[in-house]
Amino acid sequence: MGFRRKDLLGTRDLSADEIRTLLESAESFKEIAERPLKKVPALRGKTVVNLFFEPSTRTRTSFEIAAKRLSADAVNISASTSSVVKGESLLDTVDNLQAMAPDIIVVRHKSVGAAHLIAGHIGASVVNAGDGANEHPTQALLDLLTISAHKKLGPGLRVAIIGDIAHSRVARSNIWALTTLGITVRVCAPPTMLPRGLENIKGVEVCRRPEEALDGVDVVMMLRIQLERQDRLLFPSLRDYAAIFGLNRRRLALARPDAIVMHPGPMNRGVEITSDVADSEQAVILSQVSNGVALRMAVLFLLGGQGHE
Amino acid sequence: MGFRRKDLLGTRDLSADEIRTLLESAESFKEIAERPLKKVPALRGKTVVNLFFEPSTRTRTSFEIAAKRLSADAVNISASTSSVVKGESLLDTVDNLQAMAPDIIVVRHKSVGAAHLIAGHIGASVVNAGDGANEHPTQALLDLLTISAHKKLGPGLRVAIIGDIAHSRVARSNIWALTTLGITVRVCAPPTMLPRGLENIKGVEVCRRPEEALDGVDVVMMLRIQLERQDRLLFPSLRDYAAIFGLNRRRLALARPDAIVMHPGPMNRGVEITSDVADSEQAVILSQVSNGVALRMAVLFLLGGQGHE
Amino acid sequence: MGFRRKDLLGTRDLSADEIRTLLESAESFKEIAERPLKKVPALRGKTVVNLFFEPSTRTRTSFEIAAKRLSADAVNISASTSSVVKGESLLDTVDNLQAMAPDIIVVRHKSVGAAHLIAGHIGASVVNAGDGANEHPTQALLDLLTISAHKKLGPGLRVAIIGDIAHSRVARSNIWALTTLGITVRVCAPPTMLPRGLENIKGVEVCRRPEEALDGVDVVMMLRIQLERQDRLLFPSLRDYAAIFGLNRRRLALARPDAIVMHPGPMNRGVEITSDVADSEQAVILSQVSNGVALRMAVLFLLGGQGHE
Repeated sequence: MGFRRKDLLGTRDLSADEIRTLLESAESFKEIAERPLKKVPALRGKTVVNLFFEPSTRTRTSFEIAAKRLSADAVNISASTSSVVKGESLLDTVDNLQAMAPDIIVVRHKSVGAAHLIAGHIGASVVNAGDGANEHPTQALLDLLTISAHKKLGPGLRVAIIGDIAHSRVARSNIWALTTLGITVRVCAPPTMLPRGLENIKGVEVCRRPEEALDGVDVVMMLRIQLERQDRLLFPSLRDYAAIFGLNRRRLALARPDAIVMHPGPMNRGVEITSDVADSEQAVILSQVSNGVALRMAVLFLLGGQGHE
Repeated sequence: MGFRRKDLLGTRDLSADEIRTLLESAESFKEIAERPLKKVPALRGKTVVNLFFEPSTRTRTSFEIAAKRLSADAVNISASTSSVVKGESLLDTVDNLQAMAPDIIVVRHKSVGAAHLIAGHIGASVVNAGDGANEHPTQALLDLLTISAHKKLGPGLRVAIIGDIAHSRVARSNIWALTTLGITVRVCAPPTMLPRGLENIKGVEVCRRPEEALDGVDVVMMLRIQLERQDRLLFPSLRDYAAIFGLNRRRLALARPDAIVMHPGPMNRGVEITSDVADSEQAVILSQVSNGVALRMAVLFLLGGQGHE
Repeated sequence: MGFRRKDLLGTRDLSADEIRTLLESAESFKEIAERPLKKVPALRGKTVVNLFFEPSTRTRTSFEIAAKRLSADAVNISASTSSVVKGESLLDTVDNLQAMAPDIIVVRHKSVGAAHLIAGHIGASVVNAGDGANEHPTQALLDLLTISAHKKLGPGLRVAIIGDIAHSRVARSNIWALTTLGITVRVCAPPTMLPRGLENIKGVEVCRRPEEALDGVDVVMMLRIQLERQDRLLFPSLRDYAAIFGLNRRRLALARPDAIVMHPGPMNRGVEITSDVADSEQAVILSQVSNGVALRMAVLFLLGGQGHE
């Protein structure tokens, strides 16, 4: 057992054993956030670069705090101020960064496969913090970590994922990770937000209506409607979306009484989720954020420690 | 004695004892900036987040340097790159941040009461680094620290505050802190820049003309004219403002010969203050900046150390 | 021997001894980037401020990583968020920064002489990270460090610099440093990109055609065409520029067979350099970047250590 990869690019190619190793390591890091001194020397002298071609305070801050609590040096690079604006190619940008000898590069990019391209090109470890609509593996892993505090991960567990599946790397990474652990995943989306072929994945059930998806599930994952992309008009109106697909008390009552409610954030209250559900005792949305720091500490630790071997 | 609050939100509700505790602690931190190694381990393992919804290099840098000299991990978040742009509510943004277990959040926001709202909502300590035109307590406290190097703080001392009082959180925080210590505050502003009701505060004297305000005072605080807000036209022209309200040698001669001149910066030379006055020996404007780091170290130390008790 | 300056503002006034001291120190820092723990405590408790009035991820990141590997606290300030937008003068901005007691300020500014102005005004050490088209000394020094791994620095060595000489602080700093070491510098540019008077500098040869400049040289330095400035139309078209001045295999064959190819980055592949040359074994472009971190560690170390004496 262990985690012997150079990179964490997605959950699609992770084995159940690898997922469990990551979760166990993260479990041990959860305790650090509760200490008065939230810092361990594990990655002292290591350099972690947050290379964000798309803005994301939330994810960048989570990785930055994770790196600093491991005593690594964290360096933030955002695209708006980067050489990208000077017309340099992505690989040249990354080659240059590699020449400065970072240990881990956390990368977010709007293009599918960007993290894979970079990882194949350089010696530093690469963590995919989101590549287009493809994968966002640390989000799926922190979701698993959060579920595992309430439910036993494995066959018999049923998770509903509802929302804009087609444009969601969160959904995609969760589908791969959950099904790898033998968990049943019900997906539900408006036809314009549902990618083809999902029904062919073992363990995935495609549902037309949210009521069908929610029936008796243990976990409800609501996806964010990306308001900033609504010019694409994937749905007549937000009000219609909320009425048909939004999670409210009435719909949540269809799930198991002890079902937990998740959301990757930032939430659009009143759109994909009502405030009373978001703030209810069934919601574990803020635990997801806390677990995000612990999970990312585990990822950085497992990747960054390899140089010692 | 001591400082037992979770947050520092304003000077309005600070007692004279609390103010003195903060100043005494800051006094002890002033010496650190003069050491070859300007660092103490006081807040090692603590996370300080600078959450700035309004840009401010000056204040953010001062807090960041203060945090780092205390060995805390400092994380900067600016609104332009934050989830705010994705439509998330302020409290959801802050809840998420809290879930990452920061120890202290330093917040600047354009809305009055933002820091109070946040502080009441989360467990981390909150420092108000400016909420609209309401309060900016660390600025007032660093001003007191600066005055105390030259004058005895207490009854008998007279301070003139001249400029755009209505839109100045610096003025407001100073008025509360100075009057709490029994110091007389003379305020002077054009009618469009003078809030109502100031004359009802014990210890405050409202003056029509700067000559009246300056007469025999020990301390002159000039406020910045916010050029970037001049579209609101609170005064016919900058030239007129400078002619009537600007501090020049001639007007300064009305104050006590040993009066000190203060400005919270950034200065508009030739508008609210002439260059010869700004650069004169009576000006303590750069001492204010130096004291700002020491004062903020004291604030972070007193708030951040509470977790240990 | 030693380096006893307060500041590093340019290569123009450096002696050969000073250059050699900097290179020797940098040589010793090169090894640190290859350690598992890339960190030394040399500048613990020191504050390094990166004050960038022009955006530059590459240079800022290199200085930030260098500072952190020396255990200094690094604080980044970019102009877009600074008080500059509030109308404050450069010297007031810098005075304020100085009041916060930084040890070293790394400054980039679009105006020639900005770093010199700042250095003459404050007590902190200043490193010029680029002032307009004037100087960028750490780039020239890292170029020398890179050359020194392949060639003996000194009389007999011949370096060709080809491109937009007139607008290149990289060219200017290299010309001063190289000629100070007795190295012959051949410069070649379109007439609109060639400053007057270069031919009067001892050791500099101005060539009309790149073929003439390349003939038998040991080192080829290609300069970046600043696409973002092409509205000025210094050349009919990029295609024409590439055809006449770009470095390709055919032209490179005119240099010595063991000649090395350099570029300060970011490269415009297909414009000033073809991809096959940029990726060839003769190219040392990524070594320049690696050496940049080591060289900047040396500069920060030599300047920052003075406070101890």
